[in-house]
Parts: sequence; structure tokens; C-alpha cells
Amino acid sequence: MGSHHADRRQFLTEGAALASLAVGAVQSVGAQAPPPEARLKDNLAYGQPSRFDTTVRRALGASSAIADTALTTPLQDLDGIITPNGLFYERHHGGVPTIDPAQHRLMVHGLVDRSLIFTVDDLRRFPSESRIHFLECSGNPGYKKPYGKTASDLVGLVSCAEWTGVSLKLVLQEAGLQPGAKWVVAEGADAAALTRSIPIDKCLEDAMLVYSQNGERLRPQQGYPLRLLLPGFEGNMSVKWLRRLRVAAEPAYSREETSKYTDLMPDGTAREFTFYMETKSIITRPSGSQRLTSHGFHEISGLAWSGRGRIKRVEVSVDDGKSWQEAQLQDPVLTRALTRFRLPWRWEGQSAVIQSRAIDETGYVQPTLAELLAVRGDNSVYHNNAIWPWHIAADGEVSNALA
Amino acid sequence: MGSHHADRRQFLTEGAALASLAVGAVQSVGAQAPPPEARLKDNLAYGQPSRFDTTVRRALGASSAIADTALTTPLQDLDGIITPNGLFYERHHGGVPTIDPAQHRLMVHGLVDRSLIFTVDDLRRFPSESRIHFLECSGNPGYKKPYGKTASDLVGLVSCAEWTGVSLKLVLQEAGLQPGAKWVVAEGADAAALTRSIPIDKCLEDAMLVYSQNGERLRPQQGYPLRLLLPGFEGNMSVKWLRRLRVAAEPAYSREETSKYTDLMPDGTAREFTFYMETKSIITRPSGSQRLTSHGFHEISGLAWSGRGRIKRVEVSVDDGKSWQEAQLQDPVLTRALTRFRLPWRWEGQSAVIQSRAIDETGYVQPTLAELLAVRGDNSVYHNNAIWPWHIAADGEVSNALA
Repeated sequence: MGSHHADRRQFLTEGAALASLAVGAVQSVGAQAPPPEARLKDNLAYGQPSRFDTTVRRALGASSAIADTALTTPLQDLDGIITPNGLFYERHHGGVPTIDPAQHRLMVHGLVDRSLIFTVDDLRRFPSESRIHFLECSGNPGYKKPYGKTASDLVGLVSCAEWTGVSLKLVLQEAGLQPGAKWVVAEGADAAALTRSIPIDKCLEDAMLVYSQNGERLRPQQGYPLRLLLPGFEGNMSVKWLRRLRVAAEPAYSREETSKYTDLMPDGTAREFTFYMETKSIITRPSGSQRLTSHGFHEISGLAWSGRGRIKRVEVSVDDGKSWQEAQLQDPVLTRALTRFRLPWRWEGQSAVIQSRAIDETGYVQPTLAELLAVRGDNSVYHNNAIWPWHIAADGEVSNALA
Repeated sequence: MGSHHADRRQFLTEGAALASLAVGAVQSVGAQAPPPEARLKDNLAYGQPSRFDTTVRRALGASSAIADTALTTPLQDLDGIITPNGLFYERHHGGVPTIDPAQHRLMVHGLVDRSLIFTVDDLRRFPSESRIHFLECSGNPGYKKPYGKTASDLVGLVSCAEWTGVSLKLVLQEAGLQPGAKWVVAEGADAAALTRSIPIDKCLEDAMLVYSQNGERLRPQQGYPLRLLLPGFEGNMSVKWLRRLRVAAEPAYSREETSKYTDLMPDGTAREFTFYMETKSIITRPSGSQRLTSHGFHEISGLAWSGRGRIKRVEVSVDDGKSWQEAQLQDPVLTRALTRFRLPWRWEGQSAVIQSRAIDETGYVQPTLAELLAVRGDNSVYHNNAIWPWHIAADGEVSNALA
């Protein structure tokens, strides 16, 4: 990328100014040995963050109605594309069940040649696969004000992990699909018995039965001991605590695909089965509630993703949308995974509006909020994938430009 | 991969047998709703594993002399290639210092045009990069018996994460390298003031100053708030709690590169500056202390890595080395990163010896232990990258075939 190298050279002409000191009494560095970290037994077997690192945490949902059932990932404080399991976003409709994995069962029945019941250990005997994919709540964010102040407030219901499990296609082939099998109805073992209908094509494309996240067992909040994963589809369809798959000719029209997770349009009709999370991006640094404390070089960094496939390009504007520059994408760029983008930038104290827009491999371009509202209105709370601008004030304060 | 597809078809002819039940009373599944998970406040802000998941933990080092300074990653219980931060291996020589990041400084001096001191925030202002790399202790494992029983006992001092930080090249360019700059001497802020000399070529190739691991801040045991990362080099050189980089014409010949981390050969000479972790692999499932409880299909799965670059191929033998089959590699295959391999296999109760050997993109082939010992003897405890076979008894018990 020619432009990137050029910008890096520009950075080099002033980067040394970023050092705190051009060194007088360097001898004093490290003269005092820091005290040792306490070696708690629990911290040996399973390590924890530093006691100084107390701010990089999940936040409760903005609405008190769903506060502790919608925990957001602190996107503005994270780097790279992998979300650590302790900070992965949570959303659940009936609490988090405590499930003894030895007691858990998955039933596969309906339009199949052989109904089957599996333990988690049975599924561990199947051929496995591991893939890095994002997961995102459908309502991330809504369309109506108030909009969140931080990147996390706004779109913190998205995270990304390496998932390991079994191809759903393989399990369905074991059961044997009968003619007329068009949908698979998935049901969770939570108090809500969350139920979603999935087109058979998706089940045979890249759906997985997942038991592992970032190498270790799923966390309870993520469906321990077994969840469905539908890469690129709205998060609630990746049913957690998965106990049942019923193969059917028709969808179930469950609560979560009629009363909830349908998109009410301005004319009173509702879009249903809007599965895909469309192309989206957000600048995470600098972002809302952060502050630029000095002039000069600042890297603009953020995340882009698409439920349809790979991110092809991310463009960044630093002049309120008048012009756009191509950002650098961090390798590896993976399908249906978060993609980190970066653009070198100089800030000299001017008031500015910065924003990113993502283009995926299908050629789809992330829309503005105005464009989305013009088509969809603001009755729905789902599938808002708008470009989101941040305002930078002359004093360096960053805030939501649309709030 | 033709052979993989063929084996998958073979699996399909018997996979349904893995189901616990071919379904009589399926109605009873999920009849009792499980109890809700306790929502501890701490578990909201930063999630923890399930209370049922108590076995996937790090183990203390086998030798009591280094027990709580050498914690191993439970490779045999993990999936994929990412190691969660709580289970990342640990090795330290002078305890884990508690460092307030606001007080920490990195000094760059020696053969440079400008000596510089950086805070962590200063370094966060630099252009960033994120890369997935393994990190491995040089002594993983030793050459002398007793050898470990489990994959973790044996080679659990290796892990893999997504690291974010600054290119060391960029920081050195800021300081300005002077003629004669051939080495960079890195020093940690731990009680050992661990010191290692790094060839300037590596510093300018892919070395990083790292502040973030798997998205979040480094853990104290991993060098919080700042560490060096030298992809593919022995782990101790990726100096943790990094406080000083001295650019020099000669190496420092520190304790950790003379008394320690040199490889004593049978003729009494010692190999010094043996930086690269050579190509290696290990079958993690099935592996030592696990047990095959039934006949039929079993997936063989493991990890391969090379300090020299990408893994090109992994071969697996299930007949004590008489013949070898090519394993499937999980995408993405990344340079100097763990690579997951898999091979479908049928076990019908026969006694067997299974093992893997990795070949990297340079064409180097992982050697046997006998080959290594013939050349290097067993005086040293470093750079043992031998093929490691597991013995499977007729009762399914898996044990170390060389122990």
C-alpha cells in the first residue's frame, strides 16, 4: 500500500517527539525494583488481569430493562480482532442456565431418517473444525435517540472469537435429511427455551455445533456446554445451551422470529427472517469519551465486519464525509470475522468529524444513518449498520457526532 | 484434500453410531429447566469459566525447583490455535513484578542518534500492528528422563495469542541507528533484570513492543505493561516488563545467554545464541493420560509450529513410524503461529503407536529424539524439538511411548 508507506514516512519525521524525555538522567530508570506480584493459588491455575487494569471491562446494557442481560464488549479499549472470553458480549432472554455437561443432551429429530440424541462427549468424537468468526446482536444499536456515548455503548454487542466444534452439515447427514426438509428449528435449554428457525441452506453451508471458544470450553454465558454458531447471522439465532434441532418443512414462527427480531417498517409491514448482519464498521480509537491530549500524529483504528463474507475495503473520512481515504487492513482478513483497519492521521487542534465506511466482497457499501432511516424508519431496533461519525472538538474531546 | 474427503465419507458410514441413543423417549429431553447461573457482580464485568469446567487449568512445573515459575498450558484439553490469556504458559526467573503502568518507562539508548524514554502511553501513540504468533520456552521439554506423561507435561510451555504493539524497527528508526549498531540488549524490570542480546537484523525484521494480548492488556505474568516479542525466537528473549533497549556493537553475554540458554554439546563445547525454535509438532488428542473408551472413529488432532515461518505439511503415523499420512491443516496457516492439524482414524482395539512430524516452509523436517540425541547428546535442556510418539494400549490407555 503506497499511501501507507508514505504516511509512515511522514510519521517518522516527528515520531521522536512522542518520547517523554530526550534523556537526561537515564541512569535512574529502573533503579527501584518493583514489588513482586502476589501469587494467589487461583491465579496460578487460571490467570487474571493486572490489578492496575480495572477499566477494561464489560458495561451493563444502557437500558435498565435489559441491564444485566446485555453486557457490552469495551471495543474502545481493545486491540486486534480477538475478543478475550472474559470480555465477550452477552445477551440472553431468560437468564443464564447452569448446565452440568454430563447431563446435557442434544436431540436431532423431525424430517430425518434417524432421530438421534447426543451427549457432548458424543459430539467431541465427530471430526472437528475451528474458525474465527464475529458474533453480533441484531439490535446493535437501535435507530432512536439517545445514541450511546462510547463505541461500546453504541455497538458493543459485537465480539469475535475462534470457535471449535462440529459441522452441523455432518450431524444432519448422520441423521439423514428427508425430502421436504427446508428448515431446522433450534431450541435452547434456557428458561426462555429460545427457539429459532434456520434455513436448511445455512445449516449445510457453514453452521457449527460449538463446544469451545478461544481454545477453552464455552463460558456459561456463551451457551456452555453446547451452542449453535451461524456465522454472519444475527446473534440470537446462534442458539446457546442447544438441546434440540427439529428438521421441518416450515419455520416455527416462534416468539423470537415474530414478536421479536422482525423489523417494523414505516408502512406497518414487518421484515421477517432478516438473518444477515450487513457490512458495518466503527472507529474505536479515537472514539466517544476519549480525548486527544496533544497535537501531531494519531493513528485512527477500528473494526469492520460483514455477515456476507470478507471485508474488501474500509474508507475513512476525517473531514465530515467530504473526502475518503483507504485504510490499511490487518492480515489475516477472514470471512465473517472482525477485521482491524488503521489510518495514520495528524491532528493539529482543528475541530473534525471522523468516520469509517466498510465495503465487503459482495460490493455492498455501509450506508449512512440518514440513508437507513429514509428507507426503514425508526420503528425497528434491529439491523442498524449505519456509518457512525465521531466529533473531535478543538480541546480534543471526542463525542458522538449524531447524538 | 482428496484423502480427507475420502476419510470423511468413511466416517459417515458409522458416525450415527456415536449418538448415545437412536431415540426412544425423546420427549424427556429438557423437561426440567436447569437452575440459573449465579450472577456475581465480578462475573458481569469480567466473565469466568463454568463451575463445571474445573479441569482445564494450567499445571505447576514438573520440577519442584521451578514449580510456580513454570506453568504449563493444558494443550491436551484445548482446541484451535488461540490460547486464552488465563491459560497462557508462564515462565519467569525472578518472580512477577507488580508494575504501575503510569510509572513504567522504556529507555532506548546506546549507539543511537537520540536517546529516548517512552511511557506506555507514548508507545500507544505510535502506529500499531496485530499479529498471531506462538511463544515457546527454550526448554520444552528437556532431553533426559523422566519425560512427561501428558502433552502439557511434555511440551506445555508453548502457547499462541494475537499480540498488538509497535514495530521495534519503527522505534529504533526514531532513535536513529548509528554505524556499528549490531545488537540490541533488552532488559526487564523484574528482580532478575533479565537481559538478552538480540541481533539487529531480527529487531528490524518482525520484532514488536507489545502492550496487548488477545485484545486486552498484557497480564502481569506476560510482562504487563510492556514486553518485547521476537516471533519464532526462544521465549526468554521476548523480554517481559521491558524497561531498557541498549543498542550496541557486541552482545552483552548476560547470565541468560552464557550460564543459561546455551546448549552444552557432548564434546564439551556449547552452542550459543541458538535463537530459533525449530519445527515441532505434538498430537494433543489422543495424548498421554487420556483414554479411548470405544472402538471406531477417532479424530487425531494436534499442533505444529516453526520459528522459521509457516508450517507446510504435517504427517501422521499410526503404525509406529512405518508409514505416514498427510494431515489436514486448519486455515488460516500463519507464519510463526500454532497450526492445528487433524487426521481421521479408526481404532479397533489394537495396540498402536501414533506420532506426528511437521515440515515447515523452509523444507526442514522435525527429527526423532534418537536423531537429536545422536547429534546433541543430553547435556543440554534446550531446543528439543523431537517427534513424540504416544502408545495406545489394547484397553485404550494412552501413554508416553518414550517414557
